[in-house]
Amino acid sequence: MTRSDKRDTQPSRDVAVIVGGGPGISASCARLFTDSGMRVGIAARDPDKPVLQNLEKTHGVRRYACDASEPAAVELLFQSVVRDLGAPTLVIHNIDGRMLGIFRKGITEADPSMALETLRNSAFSAFLVGQQAARLMRENEPKANGAKGTIIFTNASAALKGFPLSGAFAMACQAKAGLAQSMARELMPEGIHVANVPIDAAIGWTQEDGTRAHRLAGTSVDDNMADPDYIAEAYLQLHRQHRSTWAFEVVLRPWVEKW
Amino acid sequence: MTRSDKRDTQPSRDVAVIVGGGPGISASCARLFTDSGMRVGIAARDPDKPVLQNLEKTHGVRRYACDASEPAAVELLFQSVVRDLGAPTLVIHNIDGRMLGIFRKGITEADPSMALETLRNSAFSAFLVGQQAARLMRENEPKANGAKGTIIFTNASAALKGFPLSGAFAMACQAKAGLAQSMARELMPEGIHVANVPIDAAIGWTQEDGTRAHRLAGTSVDDNMADPDYIAEAYLQLHRQHRSTWAFEVVLRPWVEKW
Amino acid sequence: MTRSDKRDTQPSRDVAVIVGGGPGISASCARLFTDSGMRVGIAARDPDKPVLQNLEKTHGVRRYACDASEPAAVELLFQSVVRDLGAPTLVIHNIDGRMLGIFRKGITEADPSMALETLRNSAFSAFLVGQQAARLMRENEPKANGAKGTIIFTNASAALKGFPLSGAFAMACQAKAGLAQSMARELMPEGIHVANVPIDAAIGWTQEDGTRAHRLAGTSVDDNMADPDYIAEAYLQLHRQHRSTWAFEVVLRPWVEKW
Amino acid sequence: MTRSDKRDTQPSRDVAVIVGGGPGISASCARLFTDSGMRVGIAARDPDKPVLQNLEKTHGVRRYACDASEPAAVELLFQSVVRDLGAPTLVIHNIDGRMLGIFRKGITEADPSMALETLRNSAFSAFLVGQQAARLMRENEPKANGAKGTIIFTNASAALKGFPLSGAFAMACQAKAGLAQSMARELMPEGIHVANVPIDAAIGWTQEDGTRAHRLAGTSVDDNMADPDYIAEAYLQLHRQHRSTWAFEVVLRPWVEKW
Repeated sequence: MTRSDKRDTQPSRDVAVIVGGGPGISASCARLFTDSGMRVGIAARDPDKPVLQNLEKTHGVRRYACDASEPAAVELLFQSVVRDLGAPTLVIHNIDGRMLGIFRKGITEADPSMALETLRNSAFSAFLVGQQAARLMRENEPKANGAKGTIIFTNASAALKGFPLSGAFAMACQAKAGLAQSMARELMPEGIHVANVPIDAAIGWTQEDGTRAHRLAGTSVDDNMADPDYIAEAYLQLHRQHRSTWAFEVVLRPWVEKW
Repeated sequence: MTRSDKRDTQPSRDVAVIVGGGPGISASCARLFTDSGMRVGIAARDPDKPVLQNLEKTHGVRRYACDASEPAAVELLFQSVVRDLGAPTLVIHNIDGRMLGIFRKGITEADPSMALETLRNSAFSAFLVGQQAARLMRENEPKANGAKGTIIFTNASAALKGFPLSGAFAMACQAKAGLAQSMARELMPEGIHVANVPIDAAIGWTQEDGTRAHRLAGTSVDDNMADPDYIAEAYLQLHRQHRSTWAFEVVLRPWVEKW
Repeated sequence: MTRSDKRDTQPSRDVAVIVGGGPGISASCARLFTDSGMRVGIAARDPDKPVLQNLEKTHGVRRYACDASEPAAVELLFQSVVRDLGAPTLVIHNIDGRMLGIFRKGITEADPSMALETLRNSAFSAFLVGQQAARLMRENEPKANGAKGTIIFTNASAALKGFPLSGAFAMACQAKAGLAQSMARELMPEGIHVANVPIDAAIGWTQEDGTRAHRLAGTSVDDNMADPDYIAEAYLQLHRQHRSTWAFEVVLRPWVEKW
Repeated sequence: MTRSDKRDTQPSRDVAVIVGGGPGISASCARLFTDSGMRVGIAARDPDKPVLQNLEKTHGVRRYACDASEPAAVELLFQSVVRDLGAPTLVIHNIDGRMLGIFRKGITEADPSMALETLRNSAFSAFLVGQQAARLMRENEPKANGAKGTIIFTNASAALKGFPLSGAFAMACQAKAGLAQSMARELMPEGIHVANVPIDAAIGWTQEDGTRAHRLAGTSVDDNMADPDYIAEAYLQLHRQHRSTWAFEVVLRPWVEKW
């Protein structure tokens, strides 16, 4: 067997589950993964959002209703995916969890119940999703690249640095990073690749009408935000890495970002 | 005014609140702080533990019943402290939160409800305690060292590194670290000193009968664990630092610890 | 222009310079980069090593003699590359610098002159190579992915953590990491992608006779070391990243590595 | 023996060596250490600077001429200290090494010879000083706090983050941090406390005429810079820590500093 044979060359067997569904990273992942031959399921609290309906039509993506902060709902989601698509080999936890009600509020102004919700929506749902993914992947046969599967946690710059006026979000992002580290140390020696990917940027993209979503005010640069299509590309590269050289953490950041 | 006048030389005005009460760090802090002239309150789910009753007798420590993961309970705790002792100038969040039921369990074995409890008991209670402390300290007059107050979060090595078989604990510790960072960046410019203190060690001490609590098996070294009396000393030094040179994070580690 | 047009689709214009030449990462990069259509130069103190002569024969790699710790030599190297191959768009600094004479020696045993040599060979040569690369790349036209060029520093786990018995190596690796960070913050907003890639592993590969170089004693796993072919692949992916989502640091680590 | 007996209560036996001498941290350390009963030597390229002559007069500080980037000079320095004052128990490496000729210069503008000088003056001198200190301290008897000695490296925020326009300084600071980490892991289990102290601030102080040195333009706050007297205090606290709870890294930062 030559070395090139060791890469992951059977994407058609790949089953990807994206938890958290919207028009940004999730949609880009869904398009790229299906274009690469994977079967793709996407889970969201509201799976009937137009963007998801559209992904079903254009890319055959399967939609699932799931409140990912509920243990039973996450268990059911993975059972449904196995039944419909097969055992997952790539799972993306793509829930940010930030709540507008407390974002940019000082520590003394932030509503405690929203702080707890932020933790549940982001970190705890990551725990639930990671747990179900690990249970199923452990039973997979290793692919040519030596991997039984890949679990990727989308994260934010608050995972790297707790900013003022966002204590609850910092808690949730760093909790998710801590979970990812613990899971990586535990699962990588079993052949499951775990990655934490803080996106240190606003995320922006070109909409169907050619205009830019989330254009930063006052800038003329059109790539000063992270393009979700390239984030999806980075995720696919992580998934395809040979287990001899796995990256655990990749921070993605636009060229003009201050850090 | 000479420089030495700028230090914190009025400890008698100091009011310390220790949230989370047991025979280790909390008791050492209570003893050292009262010996230094502070009025001290200590909060625990069960304030009638013998160690706390004893601290009341020997050191005049005030005891409070408080489930620190409940917003209303934490609010009431601080109201009671203000009424009984005065506005706090030093608050220690000393809740570890680790639950034996999931500690050292793999990600696929850990009970989700315990993972959520760990987050609530540790990170969320830190949020609640930090919030109340910040609200009250903001109204304090600065002391000679420029500080309106000090908020210290006891943390563990999992705040620095997510270890295998402890995903929930890693989440909680890193969440607490993220909160502390966010609060430090927000509150230090207002004169409130915030610190995160990961203890990278088992904690051990000499008991009243002269034997060692928590002696590590197979070692002859009697100071291979962190002595809570010295941790308390480090906390007092942090509290007394002049605001021109504040430390945010101090990792305390015994000399023989591997890291 | 569609989004896919924005990727780097003109590798034939790419000119890669690899500084530090041996049978591991350098050779893998040279093969992969030439196979991808780049013109490749490789610099080494002794460019007549069989592995480099062989790369010239099989892949048309251009060889250069260069002591990369000498400012004039590095300047000359880049002048020669520009003359022979064109302005570089991808520069790899692949000098480890560890000296057997002091490696695994305690701080009190290590020969100071070797410690200084380690700094010069690794960190200072990285400075010289980075400086020349930046000067030339600044004049490049941006490619479709928005990049004027990519500078990658191969690094070691000592960049992440100073291990005992290797003070000089820790100095050199962390110096190189500091340089890379400073250059990244300075040059990325100018369109030059800078990356630091600590390889947290021994590096091993299959030799021409089918046996493994650097097989770890006592292990039956044949991919417990980083395979340089996959490291080269990671470098190429970094080089091709769109500037909307650049990674600065990627730690590559085999699945079974402890960290 | 009670616990309080275990602290370091015999400062009169303490011998401190401060390498790098000026009106800031070094002078503050010299004053505080002598006031605490230590015998103190201070080494500088020019030991006849007025500030050092003055310290000799007012505090009995011993002055030594030493180019700390020269192995033989550093060896001689420590021999002289042992002869004059006794074996050192506290060594402060307080050389910043930044050179005005390249500070705030871009990577393409910085003079390579100055970059190498920066490495030699800062990181390499730290290696030499650390090496001599470790050799001598290893022979000391442990004091009551369990320590044979303390080695402290003053560092800068560039040790934590490589800023633009200061590549050489970032190299030097991170090299010093890497050295300190390696030495700490190696020497702490032998009873020698090693610490890295990045000062994330400009340093300012009140001069003899009552005016402030280094007042930041446009601010009315007079404690927005790190006061070297408080830095010296932090160093003394590190030196006195019991080995059951050693801190390796302490970042000191004024309350209003952005980070």
